[in-house]
Amino acid sequence: MVPDSSALAHHIDEVALIDQHAHGCWLAAGDRRRFENALNEANTDPLVDSGFDSQLGFAVRAHCAPILGLPKHVEPQAYWERRRQLGEAELARLFLPAANVSDWLVDTGIGADTAGTDEMAAWSGNRAHEVVRLEQVAEQAAAAPGDYASAFEEILHRRAATAVGTKSILAYRGGFDGDLSEPSAAQVARAAGRWRDDGGTRLRDRVLLRFGLHRALRLGKPLQFHVGFGDRDADLHRANPLFLLDFLRQSGDTPIVLLHCYPYEREAGYLAQAFNNVYLDGGLSVNYLGARAPAFIARLLEMAPFRRILYSSDGYGPAELHFLGAALWRNGIHRVLRGFVDEGEWSESDAIRVVDLIARDNAARIYRV
Amino acid sequence: MVPDSSALAHHIDEVALIDQHAHGCWLAAGDRRRFENALNEANTDPLVDSGFDSQLGFAVRAHCAPILGLPKHVEPQAYWERRRQLGEAELARLFLPAANVSDWLVDTGIGADTAGTDEMAAWSGNRAHEVVRLEQVAEQAAAAPGDYASAFEEILHRRAATAVGTKSILAYRGGFDGDLSEPSAAQVARAAGRWRDDGGTRLRDRVLLRFGLHRALRLGKPLQFHVGFGDRDADLHRANPLFLLDFLRQSGDTPIVLLHCYPYEREAGYLAQAFNNVYLDGGLSVNYLGARAPAFIARLLEMAPFRRILYSSDGYGPAELHFLGAALWRNGIHRVLRGFVDEGEWSESDAIRVVDLIARDNAARIYRV
Amino acid sequence: MVPDSSALAHHIDEVALIDQHAHGCWLAAGDRRRFENALNEANTDPLVDSGFDSQLGFAVRAHCAPILGLPKHVEPQAYWERRRQLGEAELARLFLPAANVSDWLVDTGIGADTAGTDEMAAWSGNRAHEVVRLEQVAEQAAAAPGDYASAFEEILHRRAATAVGTKSILAYRGGFDGDLSEPSAAQVARAAGRWRDDGGTRLRDRVLLRFGLHRALRLGKPLQFHVGFGDRDADLHRANPLFLLDFLRQSGDTPIVLLHCYPYEREAGYLAQAFNNVYLDGGLSVNYLGARAPAFIARLLEMAPFRRILYSSDGYGPAELHFLGAALWRNGIHRVLRGFVDEGEWSESDAIRVVDLIARDNAARIYRV
Repeated sequence: MVPDSSALAHHIDEVALIDQHAHGCWLAAGDRRRFENALNEANTDPLVDSGFDSQLGFAVRAHCAPILGLPKHVEPQAYWERRRQLGEAELARLFLPAANVSDWLVDTGIGADTAGTDEMAAWSGNRAHEVVRLEQVAEQAAAAPGDYASAFEEILHRRAATAVGTKSILAYRGGFDGDLSEPSAAQVARAAGRWRDDGGTRLRDRVLLRFGLHRALRLGKPLQFHVGFGDRDADLHRANPLFLLDFLRQSGDTPIVLLHCYPYEREAGYLAQAFNNVYLDGGLSVNYLGARAPAFIARLLEMAPFRRILYSSDGYGPAELHFLGAALWRNGIHRVLRGFVDEGEWSESDAIRVVDLIARDNAARIYRV
Repeated sequence: MVPDSSALAHHIDEVALIDQHAHGCWLAAGDRRRFENALNEANTDPLVDSGFDSQLGFAVRAHCAPILGLPKHVEPQAYWERRRQLGEAELARLFLPAANVSDWLVDTGIGADTAGTDEMAAWSGNRAHEVVRLEQVAEQAAAAPGDYASAFEEILHRRAATAVGTKSILAYRGGFDGDLSEPSAAQVARAAGRWRDDGGTRLRDRVLLRFGLHRALRLGKPLQFHVGFGDRDADLHRANPLFLLDFLRQSGDTPIVLLHCYPYEREAGYLAQAFNNVYLDGGLSVNYLGARAPAFIARLLEMAPFRRILYSSDGYGPAELHFLGAALWRNGIHRVLRGFVDEGEWSESDAIRVVDLIARDNAARIYRV
Repeated sequence: MVPDSSALAHHIDEVALIDQHAHGCWLAAGDRRRFENALNEANTDPLVDSGFDSQLGFAVRAHCAPILGLPKHVEPQAYWERRRQLGEAELARLFLPAANVSDWLVDTGIGADTAGTDEMAAWSGNRAHEVVRLEQVAEQAAAAPGDYASAFEEILHRRAATAVGTKSILAYRGGFDGDLSEPSAAQVARAAGRWRDDGGTRLRDRVLLRFGLHRALRLGKPLQFHVGFGDRDADLHRANPLFLLDFLRQSGDTPIVLLHCYPYEREAGYLAQAFNNVYLDGGLSVNYLGARAPAFIARLLEMAPFRRILYSSDGYGPAELHFLGAALWRNGIHRVLRGFVDEGEWSESDAIRVVDLIARDNAARIYRV
C-alpha cells in the first residue's frame, strides 16, 4: 500500500459514519464454535471447516487483530485465545468506538442474546436508534386480542413512534416474486384468522406479509428490505430486487432501502436510478467479501445516483463485524475514489462530497437522525 | 493519468467511429429541469435530486465542459449557464464533430422534438443513416387501409429501402420471455383486427410483435434489440437476452444486434459466441457508468468474439451524450487494452486491430456503410 | 509485466495441479476448421469467423505458441502450420507435461475420438482417473436386459469402483429448474419402460435424470454438475446453480462440485458458503476468458470458503486447452493474490496456503487421489 496523505484519504479516515442497519453485539460469552459459525452467513448447519478460511476470516485477522493488540494476520488460534480472554461487553467497548460510527440503526427483530439500543449506545459511546421489524410486529399482533389489522396498526405506530424506520424480511418468507399489492380488509381478516388458528408464529402468509408492507409504506418512515445475500433459508434467486418492480411502482414517497444486495447490487443500483424513493447499501456483503470488497463497492457506484447510496455493517453477534464493516468500507471507498480521481474522471472535492453523502448525509436526511 | 504516447493510444484517439445506434439531438431549447432529467435514463418521474449527482453527471462535467471552453469538473451551475447560452443546434455543432464519428445510425422511432438524419449529418459534418423501428411500422400499418400484414410489409420495405437496419423495443412491450415464434396469417389478421378496434396505438399485442420480428428477419438487414438497461416502463429482468435463445435458434443469417445489455452484458457476450449472427454493444450503459465504464467495457470483451462487438452511444436529446459515448469509449477501451498489452496477454498490433473492428469495421460490414 | 521473485510467485509457478475435470485430447489429426471450431464452446454451427478472433484465440497465441517453439502472439496461420506438422499425440506430449498436472480427472462420457485415461496418463507422464457420466450410465442401463433401476445400480457401482466421482449434464437435459426430488421405484419403472420403447438414447426424461442424481448421492463419491457456460444446446438461464437449492438441501454429505459456473460464479460461491458439501471451479471459463481470466478468478474468491474452490481446465480436444487452463490459472491467481498481499489484506503465507488448497489439496481430499 502506498501511503496516501491526500485530503480525500484523510477525510475518509476521519468521517463519522451512520451505520444504517445493524443488529446487536452478543451479550454473553460463547465457545469457539459459536464464533467461527458467526463468520459464515449462508450456512445454517454447524461448519465442518474453519470459519477463518474465508475472506471474512482473513479480514478479521488483518483488521481486527490490531484492535486487540495483536499483529496483523495473526494465526486463528492466537486470535481466538485473545478474544476469549475478553468478555463480549469488553470486546464491544473496543470495537464499537473504533468503528467511528455516530449513530447505530439497530434492527431489534432477532437475537434475544444480543444487545439492544441501550447497550449499543453505552458500549460505543454514541447514539443508537431502533428499526422495527415488520414480521415481529405481525407476530405481536397475532398474539394480541381482537382484530388483527387494528392490533398491527396500533403496535406498529406505538413502536415506530420512537423508531427511525421499519424492516422487512420478506426475502425469508417466500421471496419477492408474486403479487405484492395491498390486500383487502376481508382478505386480511381471513388470513389472520387462519394464522392465529395455526399458532401465529413465523409468519409466511403472503396476504399478511403484503398487509404489513403497505402499512409500513403509509407510516412514511424508511422501509428496509433484506435483499440478496443471507442464509440459505431464503431462496437467493427469489430475493432479486427486480421482483420488487411492481411494488416500487406503487410505493409513493416512502424511502425504500435495499440492504446487502449481493449478487444483485447492479440491479439494485438500477432501481435507485429508476425511483426517486429507492436507496441501497452493501452492508453484510462488504464484510463477507473482505479483500474483494473494493470491487463490490465500485459496483455500488454504477447506476445509483450518489444521493441514494448508504453505509451499513449489518453487524450481528461478534463486535468485530460492527467494526470491520466500517474498516473495509473506508478501505474500499478510498481505493475506488482514489482511482476515479487519479484517472481524471472525478475531482477530489467531488469525491469528498460523495464520501459524506454515503457515509452519513443521505442516512441523516431520510432517517432524520 | 500517465500520458501514453504508444501507437495504440494514438490509434484510439484518432479512429473515426461508426455510432451504430443513436437518436437525434434536441431541436429546441429547454429548461434546466429537462436537461437534468435527460441525465437519468431509468426514472420516468421528474427527478427530485439533481441529475448531476451521478456517474453520468460527473462525466459530463469532466469530458463535456472542455468542449464548451470550461474547466474540467466545473460546477453544475456554471455548466448549465454556459449550455443555456448556446442553442441546441450550436451545441450539436460543437459536440457531434468532437465525437469523430463518420456515420450515425439513427433510430427515428421516437422523439418528434429531436433531429432526424438530415440534421445529424449537417451538424456533425458526416453521414447519417436511418434505422427503422418496427413498432412504429406496426402503428403505421394499423392506421393504413386494408390488410394489416400487407400494409406492414409494404411500409417496412418502403422505409427499409433507404435504411440500414431495423430496431425492436419488444423489451418495453412485455419483454423477451414467452413464445417468439412466427404467428400464422390468420392469427395476425385476428390480432390486427382487435388492435385496430382498440385504437391501434402503443402496440403490446404479442402476436403482432412476433409478426414484426419475423418480417424483419426476412428483410435480412440487421435487427437491433433494446436489451437490459432502459427506463422503468420495462421490467428489467424480462429484458435478459437469454430469453431470446429460442428466437435466435430460428433467426438464420440476419444479424441480430443486442443493444446496451447492462447488467446482462456477460449473457449477451455468450450469445455472440453461441450464434454466428449475434452482435452486441454497450451503448447507453457506457454513458451512465462514467468513471466505471472501463470495467463494463472489459466485460464486453469476455465471451464475445471480437468480430461481434460494436460501438454506439445511444445518444438522445442533449448533444453531450453523442459526444460522451465516444469519449468514454475511447478512454475505456484504451485502459482495458493497454492492460492486456502490458500484461503480455495481447500484442499491441492485435489490440489496434480489435479497436478497428469494434470502432467501425464490424459495423461497416453488417450495415454496409 | 513486472517480474516477481517473491515466494508466492515461485510457489504458483511450481505447484503441481490436480485438474479435477477434463476430457481427453484428440486422438487423430484433423483439419484447420476442426481446430478453429474447438476454440468456440457455445456455437454448435460451423464458425463463419475465425476462431482465433477471441480471447481464447489470443491466449493460444500468447501462451501455447512458445511451447511449440514459436514467438508469443505468432500469427494464426503460422501457429496452425506448426501445429499441423505435429500429430495430436505429439502435441499432447508437449502440452500435457507443460501443464504440470499430477492428476487428471477425466470425464469419459463423450468423445469416442478423444483419449481415455490410459493415453492421458501416458502422454502427460502422470496419473489419470475416471469420472463417470451419469447420463451414459443411464443409456447403458437402458440397453441392458431386465429391470432398469437394478441395471443402473449395477453399472454405476461397477464403473465407480475404479472411478473417483460422477458427473451430471442435467444442464443439457432440461436444466436445473423444476423438481429434483427422488422419484419412487414405480415412477422409475414406468419412465424407463417409456424411454426404452422410444429407443433409449439421449436421456431427457426428468424422472430418470432425478433417479440417477439420487443414486449418485448415495454412492458418496463427489458428484460434478455442468453449471452455466457451455454450448447453446443448453438454455444458459436454466443452468443457474441457484435452481439447485432444493436439491442441495437434501444432498447430505456427498460432495457436490459446480463446474465452469460463468456467468453464475458469484451464485456458485454463495452455495459453497451455504452448504458444507458444495464446491466450485472455474474450468472452461478461464480458458475462454483469456486476458480477462484474472477478473473471473477474483470473483471465484468472494463468498466461497477457500476449502471449497478447485482447479480444472475442462480441456477437450486440442491439447492446448489442457495446458492453457493451467497457464491462465497460474497467471490469474498470481495477479489476484499478489494484489491482496500488496494491499495488506492477506499475508503472503496465507496466500501460499490458499494456492495449495485450490491447486490440489481440496481435490486430493474429496477425490482421495
